[in-house]
Order: sequence, then C-alpha cells, then structure tokens
Amino acid sequence: MKKKIVLTGDRPTGPLHLGHYVGSLKNRILLQETCDQFVMLADVQALTDHFQQPQKVRENVVEVTLDYLSVGIDPLKTTIFIQSLLPQLPELTMYYLNLVTWNRLKHNPTVKQEIKQKGFGDNVSAGFMIYPVNQTADITAFRANIVPVGEDQRPMVEQCNEIVRHFNQIYHTDVLVEAEAMIPPVARLPGIDGKAKMSKSLGNAIYLSDAADVVTKKVKGMYTDPNHLRVEDPGQVEGNPVFTYLDAFDPDQEKLREMKEHYQRGGLGDSVVKKRLTEVLQAELEPIRQKRAIFAKDLGAVMEILRQGTKKAYEVAEATLQDVRKAMCLDYF
Amino acid sequence: MKKKIVLTGDRPTGPLHLGHYVGSLKNRILLQETCDQFVMLADVQALTDHFQQPQKVRENVVEVTLDYLSVGIDPLKTTIFIQSLLPQLPELTMYYLNLVTWNRLKHNPTVKQEIKQKGFGDNVSAGFMIYPVNQTADITAFRANIVPVGEDQRPMVEQCNEIVRHFNQIYHTDVLVEAEAMIPPVARLPGIDGKAKMSKSLGNAIYLSDAADVVTKKVKGMYTDPNHLRVEDPGQVEGNPVFTYLDAFDPDQEKLREMKEHYQRGGLGDSVVKKRLTEVLQAELEPIRQKRAIFAKDLGAVMEILRQGTKKAYEVAEATLQDVRKAMCLDYF
Repeated sequence: MKKKIVLTGDRPTGPLHLGHYVGSLKNRILLQETCDQFVMLADVQALTDHFQQPQKVRENVVEVTLDYLSVGIDPLKTTIFIQSLLPQLPELTMYYLNLVTWNRLKHNPTVKQEIKQKGFGDNVSAGFMIYPVNQTADITAFRANIVPVGEDQRPMVEQCNEIVRHFNQIYHTDVLVEAEAMIPPVARLPGIDGKAKMSKSLGNAIYLSDAADVVTKKVKGMYTDPNHLRVEDPGQVEGNPVFTYLDAFDPDQEKLREMKEHYQRGGLGDSVVKKRLTEVLQAELEPIRQKRAIFAKDLGAVMEILRQGTKKAYEVAEATLQDVRKAMCLDYF
Repeated sequence: MKKKIVLTGDRPTGPLHLGHYVGSLKNRILLQETCDQFVMLADVQALTDHFQQPQKVRENVVEVTLDYLSVGIDPLKTTIFIQSLLPQLPELTMYYLNLVTWNRLKHNPTVKQEIKQKGFGDNVSAGFMIYPVNQTADITAFRANIVPVGEDQRPMVEQCNEIVRHFNQIYHTDVLVEAEAMIPPVARLPGIDGKAKMSKSLGNAIYLSDAADVVTKKVKGMYTDPNHLRVEDPGQVEGNPVFTYLDAFDPDQEKLREMKEHYQRGGLGDSVVKKRLTEVLQAELEPIRQKRAIFAKDLGAVMEILRQGTKKAYEVAEATLQDVRKAMCLDYF
C-alpha cells in the first residue's frame, strides 16, 4: 500500500516550546515512521504578519530547524524544506485564488478570529487574508492526505478541499487530492502562568532550547492552585498547570496518581511537586539540548539538510504543478 | 543614456481589433525603436475572469502573437513573452500582497468599475480582486519606467508605485522602480454600432485578422448619423463612427476635410463615405493580413519567438526577484 503523505510545518517566528513538542513534534516523530512526511518552514506565511521583521523570520528558520533535529525529526525520514524556495506554491496560489470568492475568504472563521486576536482590524493585509489559499497550495503541492492541525485550524482544511473539488471539476481532472485534518489527541498545554495557551507572545513558554537553569527557574515560578497557601491545605489538581505538565511528561503515571491524591488531601507542598516536574522536564529536555548543541556546532550541515530537503520538496511540487498546468491548458512548450 | 523600459501587453481572450491597433499597437511599434520594450501575453490575468475557459485563453495566446507580428511588432526589438511561464511574477505578487491592505484593494476605482461592468457582484473572485497587485509584479519585475495604459487604468499604476515606495522603505532598498503611466493621445475608437467602445464582448469590432470581404461587410453595416436619411440631407460628423475611423486612418486628411464639409451641408451619401473608409481600411489591413498569413503558415517559428522572448523575460524577472529576496533576507543558499 502506498504510504500516506503528511504535510505539516511551522511559521518560523520564534523558537519552539513544550506546547509545540506535545502538540505536534511528538506526533511527527511517530508519523515519520509510517508516512511520507513533509515539514515546511513556512517563512512566506510568517511574513504575512511579520513582513517588517524579515531578519527575525530568517533567523528562526535556522532555530526551528535545530529544534526539529534535536527532538528527533529525522531528515532521512522526513523532508524538511523552506517554503519560499518553492516558486510552485505562489503559482498554485494564484490559480486557486480564481476559484474562491472574495466573500468566502472574508468569512473564514479561523482568519476572522486571528484578525481579532492580532488586532489587525481594517488594516489587515491582503496577504494575510489569502493565507488559507496559500495553505491550499502547500497541501495540494504535495498531494497530502493528512494535515495535522489544531481544532481551530479545521476550517483551513475545509477551504482546501473546497478548492480541490472545484479545481478538479472545472478542469475535468483528478490531479488534486483532498486532505484530511488530523486533530492531535493531546489537549493544548497551558502557559506557565496558567493561561490557556503557551505562546511566545504571552511570554509564558518553556522552550526546547532553554538552558537547564532557565527551565528550573521557570518551573519554580509556575502558577499553581492560588488557594493552596499552606502545605497542609488541600490543593486543586484540575487547572493546575504543574499537574497538567506532569500528566503530559511524567513517565511514572502511577507515582503521579499518588502525588495528585496527596496534594488534594493536603500535606504536599507546591515546591515538592515542582521539584518532581523539574526532574521530569530535565530528563526529557537534556538529550534534546545535547543533540541541539551538536547540530548547532555545524550549521553548515544543518543548511545542507535544508538544501537537500528543499530540493526534494521542489521536485514533488514541480510534478504537481506540471499536472495542474496541463489541466489548465498552460503546457505551452 | 540608458534606454527606458516599457512593459505592456494584452489579456489573450480574443483576437485584437482596430481599437487595439489605434490605441496601443501603433504606439508599441514606435516605442520599440527607442525603448527596451516587453510585451506580455497576460494569460494568468486572463484566467482571473476566464478560469472556466482555459482552452480559449490558450488559443488566443497564439492568435494575439500573430496579431503582434503581423502589425510589425518586431521580436528583434520587442520581447514578447507568456506571463504564466514566469514564476517570479506570482512570487513577487505574494510578497507585495503583505504591503497592501484588504481595504485598499476593495476601493481600487478601476477594479470597482470592472466588477460593476462584468456583473460580478458579491461573487467576485479573490483572484480578480488582487489583480492590481499581480500587475505590480509584472511592472516591477522588469523595472519598467513606462506603462502605456488607458486613462481608466491610471489607478493601477498608482497602486503599483505605492507598493514600490512601501517596499523600498520597509526593506531599506531601492531595488524596485516607480513607473509612469503613458496615456495614449488617440481617443478610443468606437464600435461599428456607434457604441463608445469597440470590444469583442459587444460584437462591434473589426479585427486585424478579418478577411477583406468581412471588413467590407462590417463597414457597410456601420452605424452613421441616424438622422441622415436622404443623400441631400445635411449629416452629422461628430459621433459618426465612419468619420471617427477616417480621422484615425485616412492618410489624405485634406480630402477627408472636404468630405466632412460636403456631408455636413448635404448631398453626400453614407455609401460614398463608407466606400472611402473601406478603401482606407483595406489599404491598412491588407499588408497586415499578408504578413499574418506568412506567420500562420509556420506556427513552429511563432512558438520559437515566444520561447525565446519568454526566456529573455525570465532572466530579467529572475534578476529582480533575486534582488527582492535579498532585501527580504530570503537569500538562503
């Protein structure tokens, strides 16, 4: 049976954190064993709302690649590539834009919510508004069957499939393939401040590249149960990010269950729980840090991985584009 | 002094007619003597509102090229190229879209008017809405100084220059060049039905490729002064398309002046005036038809002209794109 094709990636606007690790990176490490996986450094998409900071995007392309390699995304199994080096993607975007009404884009729920969150208002750029079509180009260029996304990104995959069906129907072809959204089973990791989402902009993240002492310090300062004032008081486990992190990372879930019970009936101090979380996180992050240090010493080799991955991705995207052009009577020579 | 660079072209949605000939083709024949001229077969732009008729666009790429060659656009002096074969153009479009707000696009006067004319309403495609940005990519890719356009297209060149200034400012560069709109001095040629504009969709055009008997028949059926019922009646010259055409084409303007006076005081029949117009048009069109027949016999050579022109245009656009990518920190390897 033909391997399923996975298209995923990140906007290189900052280093990756534990939220990415739990929510997507771990999933990719599994997927690369059974699927043909393409991981995209989405610099063009990053520029849609960071067009004034191109240097930042450029630097994070390398940083995020180091994150990938250090967690175990294997360039022999996964094709890591740079979005802007594939001219097929803007070209496909241009053709797909004819198949989407201006109104449809305006009412994309994900885009609407993001415009609100980012406070763009009426000044939203055209580049940002059309990014769902850009994503359709990314997904279809690889004829991806599976697109791992958060629940909030599901409308993006729906928009993609709408375009795929429309294209195939208009041009009497089957060159484009519908994709399936793969929603990760793991709940989103909260920030160390207890806020719903770990994110760079909120300043509440633990990064994969954080030094050991930084991690220790961040865990020490973590939000817990605000009513758990004295050690002997009963404490709340639900909504307590220290326990949420332990749920996600502690390999000894039996011991964790006991700790939770102890915390709930009182007598277990936050400092003890945080000490356990520090141990667990350091054990998880130390090999990642070590691997990162090795790759960081040879950035030439990292760039070579990107060059090779981009070359392979280019060829796959080019084959799709040629099929698309043929269907559209654009195969002149 | 460096030659000025001209970027112009046509949407290949139908054969070219006398309106194109007077309004733009004659101008190009002059410009190619003094400027570095690029003439674009805008198939991608044609697809924005003809995406369901790709075969029609494809066929007209060849037809319009035959029109160019037959009127004397010289591939040794003018670079004729196919838009869709330059992937630099959609890539530049993508970057420029970040520099334009969604609202700005919505309020482009030319686009607004065209949406109305074409009856798109709320169903206007995103591809159509962004075509001014697409045009900016076309113009800037060649660092064109001069863009010959109709008066109604002036806002397009303004939009282009806005993006150029914005880009150069944000990325601290001068790689993009502002262009100047060149508005042709010749008034628009009306249709043979007397309507303001000669156009394929109105079915009121005389094509450069029309056979001699077709031209004769079309002139015979032309709209004149509707109140000029009997030969002895005084006739109206203003707004009478037969005279407007004679103004544009008759080499003997002295004789034309006399004819006009005669027509105005009465005693000159429409059939006489139309006979003169037929003579004049056949004299103008016959060498064009002959040249067209020669090129049409060797479509391989025509395709080779397009291939060579596209190759040259590709190289120019690629040099610009590399400068743009460098300014945007996208020069990875």
